[in-house]
Amino acid sequence: MAGLGEQASIYTEEHRLTYYECDRTGRATLATLIDIAILASQDQSDALGLTTDFVQSHGVGWVVTQYAMTITRMPRLDETVTLAVRGSAYNPYFAYREFWIRDAAGQELAYITSIWVTMSQTTRRIVKIDPELVAPYHSEAVKRIPRLPRPLHFEPTEATLSKPYQVRFFDIDPNRHVNNAHYFDWLLDTLPADFLLQHNLMQVDVRYENEVKYGHTVTSEVNILPTTTDGTVTTSHRIRVGDEKCCEVTIKWQVIAEAVE
Amino acid sequence: MAGLGEQASIYTEEHRLTYYECDRTGRATLATLIDIAILASQDQSDALGLTTDFVQSHGVGWVVTQYAMTITRMPRLDETVTLAVRGSAYNPYFAYREFWIRDAAGQELAYITSIWVTMSQTTRRIVKIDPELVAPYHSEAVKRIPRLPRPLHFEPTEATLSKPYQVRFFDIDPNRHVNNAHYFDWLLDTLPADFLLQHNLMQVDVRYENEVKYGHTVTSEVNILPTTTDGTVTTSHRIRVGDEKCCEVTIKWQVIAEAVE
Repeated sequence: MAGLGEQASIYTEEHRLTYYECDRTGRATLATLIDIAILASQDQSDALGLTTDFVQSHGVGWVVTQYAMTITRMPRLDETVTLAVRGSAYNPYFAYREFWIRDAAGQELAYITSIWVTMSQTTRRIVKIDPELVAPYHSEAVKRIPRLPRPLHFEPTEATLSKPYQVRFFDIDPNRHVNNAHYFDWLLDTLPADFLLQHNLMQVDVRYENEVKYGHTVTSEVNILPTTTDGTVTTSHRIRVGDEKCCEVTIKWQVIAEAVE
Repeated sequence: MAGLGEQASIYTEEHRLTYYECDRTGRATLATLIDIAILASQDQSDALGLTTDFVQSHGVGWVVTQYAMTITRMPRLDETVTLAVRGSAYNPYFAYREFWIRDAAGQELAYITSIWVTMSQTTRRIVKIDPELVAPYHSEAVKRIPRLPRPLHFEPTEATLSKPYQVRFFDIDPNRHVNNAHYFDWLLDTLPADFLLQHNLMQVDVRYENEVKYGHTVTSEVNILPTTTDGTVTTSHRIRVGDEKCCEVTIKWQVIAEAVE
């Protein structure tokens, strides 16, 4: 897929990480990483006239179905990063969007790929992508878009950790949906604090299946898989509402040599 | 108190409200209002050399005990506001800090007053304010600082609404405390969605009593008092951990003539 989307427009903006976007160690949270990536993509869309209103006037809304994130280093408190986004390619049903987050020296901190669909506002079903909604990005029309890594199938065990979370009024953003970055707070908060303090994120693979709604209580579940010989750990996650699976996530972590306080 | 703190330094900065700082109606959330006000105050402190490390090197940390907020209009999605902050005055035990949030035309959107104390890191007790920690703000040394409105004493009734919230890992910010702006998500989420959609915030009076910690489950309780003839409604709130009161809050709301969707 070398060169895929090379002719697509890249939009960039700067963002300074505030204290309320960072965890107690000063690392940006995973929710923030997605929040600011999506912020850049909304700003690109607005700049190209592809506003939420314009998309809705076509009877649809964009919905993300998968993320694959490679994190070299989490941005830190007070750091100003450059966000770059590109609507790289699309086929009749799926759009492929890429994000880069770089530090002031241009070093890559994170690279995120994602798959998006358009969902009918009336039937809530996936519909063919209207080329009018992607043409301004100079997205490449292709037969096949890249496949993102599929998260591990989550298998509950006796050691599974689990916590309930009520979906809150303020989890719903101006797009009228639960901001799916909030899933990451539920996903990671289920892990013990010590684990979060002793590991850094390396790779996050997410697959969304069913929408979470205001008033739902979701169950966030996680298995911590055995540490491998290379000092990495994998966690396998699921979020469900009752028996309905909402998303599966696999995360690869690096053990931090010196424990973070 | 006319002119109190007039000689104190004012620090200003701009902030653009992002989609993830706003609710589904596009209004900034109350948590965001406090988050960005405190951001400006931390930036002022850093600019004056009063960094968290410097404060901690004196064996103390700043803790807010009261807020009184008057909100003329909540900032909205994509609006760029100007934040202004001033460490106006202090006496031996209390510091008085003011914040102004203004729109691009200079109109006041919100005015926040607050009372702060320094707490010993070892004994967790309130200690006398070291003048070194306030001198760079050009704070006025006074005998008495203004009294902020005391929230109503919360009285549970049969009609009290209540929800539990687990304090999450990501509620702890780089200052190693539960970011107290998160209290506002707990406080307001306990109200029905319809109430939140049909009312705008006018006045918020907050008094913190005991610290909330990671792992606690807090109970957020609210009474909706009868609507007054001037079309305002008052809600009386309490957050507690078991039998220990963590804060009391009184909020005055204006009924919105045209319902927000």
